[in-house]
Amino acid sequence: MNLVLLEPHEVDGHGGVRLSGERARHLTAVLHVVPGQLVRLGQLDGPHGVGTVTAVDGADVLLECQWEEAVPPRPQVDLLLALPRPKVLRRLWSQIAALGVGHVILTNAARVERHYFDAHVLEPATYHPLLVEGLQQARDTRLPVVSVHRRFRPLVEDDLATLFPAGRRLVGHPGETRSTGHALDGDAASRVLLAVGPEGGWSEFELDLLARHGFSRVGMGARPLRSDTATIALLSLVHDGLWRASGPM
Amino acid sequence: MNLVLLEPHEVDGHGGVRLSGERARHLTAVLHVVPGQLVRLGQLDGPHGVGTVTAVDGADVLLECQWEEAVPPRPQVDLLLALPRPKVLRRLWSQIAALGVGHVILTNAARVERHYFDAHVLEPATYHPLLVEGLQQARDTRLPVVSVHRRFRPLVEDDLATLFPAGRRLVGHPGETRSTGHALDGDAASRVLLAVGPEGGWSEFELDLLARHGFSRVGMGARPLRSDTATIALLSLVHDGLWRASGPM
Repeated sequence: MNLVLLEPHEVDGHGGVRLSGERARHLTAVLHVVPGQLVRLGQLDGPHGVGTVTAVDGADVLLECQWEEAVPPRPQVDLLLALPRPKVLRRLWSQIAALGVGHVILTNAARVERHYFDAHVLEPATYHPLLVEGLQQARDTRLPVVSVHRRFRPLVEDDLATLFPAGRRLVGHPGETRSTGHALDGDAASRVLLAVGPEGGWSEFELDLLARHGFSRVGMGARPLRSDTATIALLSLVHDGLWRASGPM
Repeated sequence: MNLVLLEPHEVDGHGGVRLSGERARHLTAVLHVVPGQLVRLGQLDGPHGVGTVTAVDGADVLLECQWEEAVPPRPQVDLLLALPRPKVLRRLWSQIAALGVGHVILTNAARVERHYFDAHVLEPATYHPLLVEGLQQARDTRLPVVSVHRRFRPLVEDDLATLFPAGRRLVGHPGETRSTGHALDGDAASRVLLAVGPEGGWSEFELDLLARHGFSRVGMGARPLRSDTATIALLSLVHDGLWRASGPM
């Protein structure tokens, strides 16, 4: 935990917070905080801040908070992900939030099994804490927005225009010869929507539909990867590509 | 499973193989093979090949194999990894093999806990099947070589000259402003040794020692990542960097 995230309602009118549970335990048992010590804070979807420990009261920690003015921007990358197996998605939530995603658009696809949509791991009560865990790891405050779409074609044909109105659209495809890094050369400013397929890949119909709606294919060499490995790898490549395009180095 | 990997001793003198257990189950229950069907094969640390199903005998599958002449090269990237928590390393083995690593050099570091070295997940009987699983996912035959080093300083000062005699040495560091992709621009030919630190990062002493032994720092933006996420992300960036440097696109 590299940041303690608070829900806005947890902060009282005078900037005081009483932490209990896992976050307090982390501060006392792992960081061994004492009164006077400073702790990195964030408000969920709000600003970063600093908390001064005012007291350790049994299992609780009391903090006095100061907040920055600006709220950090949302990550520049959105993810269109064919719904992975529940076990894989469970592992992936925190890593998606840690790598930085603005909107997670989960979709059906020909090679997605129907029963994946009934999994607990698609319920906010399950994934919200996992997303928060990833944000606290990566020192971000911006919670990814999640939406779930059971029909691929209406999603791509109708809904994407609203969900992702402007920016670069990329689809990862094993064996594709254009690298993800190259696809973004000189393209620092735009948002990127990255589509990652299911185990076994997108179908030809799906690839066609994506191509007709502005998605360029990008790859990562010839090795087919598991859905979670591919997601982490491609998100890293997109972020690195945007970073290189924006920076002086 | 995108490839069935065989140990060389499993193939008889006439190119015949009798598969049982998990690999046979995958062929019958997932791929529903019938006699005459072709199956992608590989020999561990040997060539790729093709197997023709000659019979399905109860739970066993019999194949007639034909092998390519050439053995694929080892992946161009080696990994110097501060030993992660056992639970994290268990998840990471197959992903390391899938992404492509020639030599996995596991090391102690100031922020590695001693008891990690006693974990089952460091025993070949545990990690060998996980590495094979990753190779079968990524259609590779070259098993990563694994070595475990309990002392960081002698490893870097003495052993690395033999373990990694020539090539680029990079160390991933959160917040470093030079991107991994940029570090490899125009450098397609060389091998790369990528060092990834523990949760909490390398110590100043360790970073100094690595710098004095030829490691350049590279980063991935400001977000601190969990050790397994960082490993997958940095390996992807190094492979993509080598690929871009080697290719026409």
